[in-house]
Amino acid sequence: MRPKMILFGDSITEDSFGDGGWGASLAHHFSRSLDVILRGYSGYNTRWVLKVIEKVCNGESPIAMTVFFGANDASLPDRTSAFQHVPLHEYKQNLQSIVSFIKKKWPTTLILLITPPPIDEDGRIRHPFGDNPSGLPERTNEAAGAYAKACVEVADECGVIGVDLWTKMQQYPNWEKCCLSDGLHLTPTGNKIVYEEVIKKLTKEGVNVETLSADLPLLSQIDPCDPLNAFQN
Amino acid sequence: MRPKMILFGDSITEDSFGDGGWGASLAHHFSRSLDVILRGYSGYNTRWVLKVIEKVCNGESPIAMTVFFGANDASLPDRTSAFQHVPLHEYKQNLQSIVSFIKKKWPTTLILLITPPPIDEDGRIRHPFGDNPSGLPERTNEAAGAYAKACVEVADECGVIGVDLWTKMQQYPNWEKCCLSDGLHLTPTGNKIVYEEVIKKLTKEGVNVETLSADLPLLSQIDPCDPLNAFQN
Repeated sequence: MRPKMILFGDSITEDSFGDGGWGASLAHHFSRSLDVILRGYSGYNTRWVLKVIEKVCNGESPIAMTVFFGANDASLPDRTSAFQHVPLHEYKQNLQSIVSFIKKKWPTTLILLITPPPIDEDGRIRHPFGDNPSGLPERTNEAAGAYAKACVEVADECGVIGVDLWTKMQQYPNWEKCCLSDGLHLTPTGNKIVYEEVIKKLTKEGVNVETLSADLPLLSQIDPCDPLNAFQN
Repeated sequence: MRPKMILFGDSITEDSFGDGGWGASLAHHFSRSLDVILRGYSGYNTRWVLKVIEKVCNGESPIAMTVFFGANDASLPDRTSAFQHVPLHEYKQNLQSIVSFIKKKWPTTLILLITPPPIDEDGRIRHPFGDNPSGLPERTNEAAGAYAKACVEVADECGVIGVDLWTKMQQYPNWEKCCLSDGLHLTPTGNKIVYEEVIKKLTKEGVNVETLSADLPLLSQIDPCDPLNAFQN
């Protein structure tokens, strides 16, 4: 049995096996060493997550798990996605509860807490979720930033790995259109940033293709003069 | 726990989570209903597979499994990949043994036996695997075709689903360059063909997003006026 890695999050995780997706890239990178298991739930906020976490976190302990929520919690409370909004202080408590639950269930699992991405408000106005007669974006970059800051704080407080995607992504030129397809979800470039950040953190913690054992002999380990010898043991 | 689908094969399976890959596309398509598990072993032929099949086929029964070998078996016995060659009659026997093993282990699993793809010999000459001073391709389309025919026969004889990729792919205009990146491995277009054929067969057998239950309530099932109600049960 191979070790597994679970990707737990909202639509940015659920969509991560689409074209150029960060989840697919992880599965490709670890194609002989890890099973990358998708647990993305479009639209979910941390309040809903706490209702389902026991169902999601079952079975054998994963070697690593990304926890990537906040984009929905940060929806503004007086705009079209208000039903997904979770107040900042509750978001922080919920994230702490999520991390505590995973740590208790799977003490050895490497937890990567990823902040929500930045928001391109113009993109949200052009690509609203459902009717939006107000013409105002249902998310703002400022709000996403406050939730991202809280997420990084939870990572520090709980002693797990934080990935400050909100800050990292905004370092890219023209990040608004380059990294985000609709002001919120990721383009292939945005996906590449998430992939690279996750790989960087995993590598730093010793989880990489070199340290993980390959499942069955690699072609490079098979002697062309005596191929079956590689399968003796 | 979600049902799972296993992708078992050689490099064309191992690479299937790369850009535009058929494995990633399946995982994306079934993002809320199936775990798509990668078991691709670059370079493997059916003779080697029989040495490892007990290790690969363990754990819970998958709902479906693709078995996609033959491209290496069909390497010519007197060219640079001779060490991967398996004679045609042995390939056929080995495939039968592989299918028998899976059927015995997991009687309810839907087995999809995929033929090797066609070969673009010009591509193989331009992109040889290692040194190739002879300048001759180590695989031919004619040989691949004979192995594909045997694969389809095994599917019929064993009562499992056959996917004749060798024939299907050659129906595409300019398949040599359009579907194959190096005369053997798949371009995004080639990947799309495999993905569509697999989906078509799964759908025909009743395995599709509509019949599989979604893991946890979908956003469309959550009442914006009372979101938590969806999580009562």
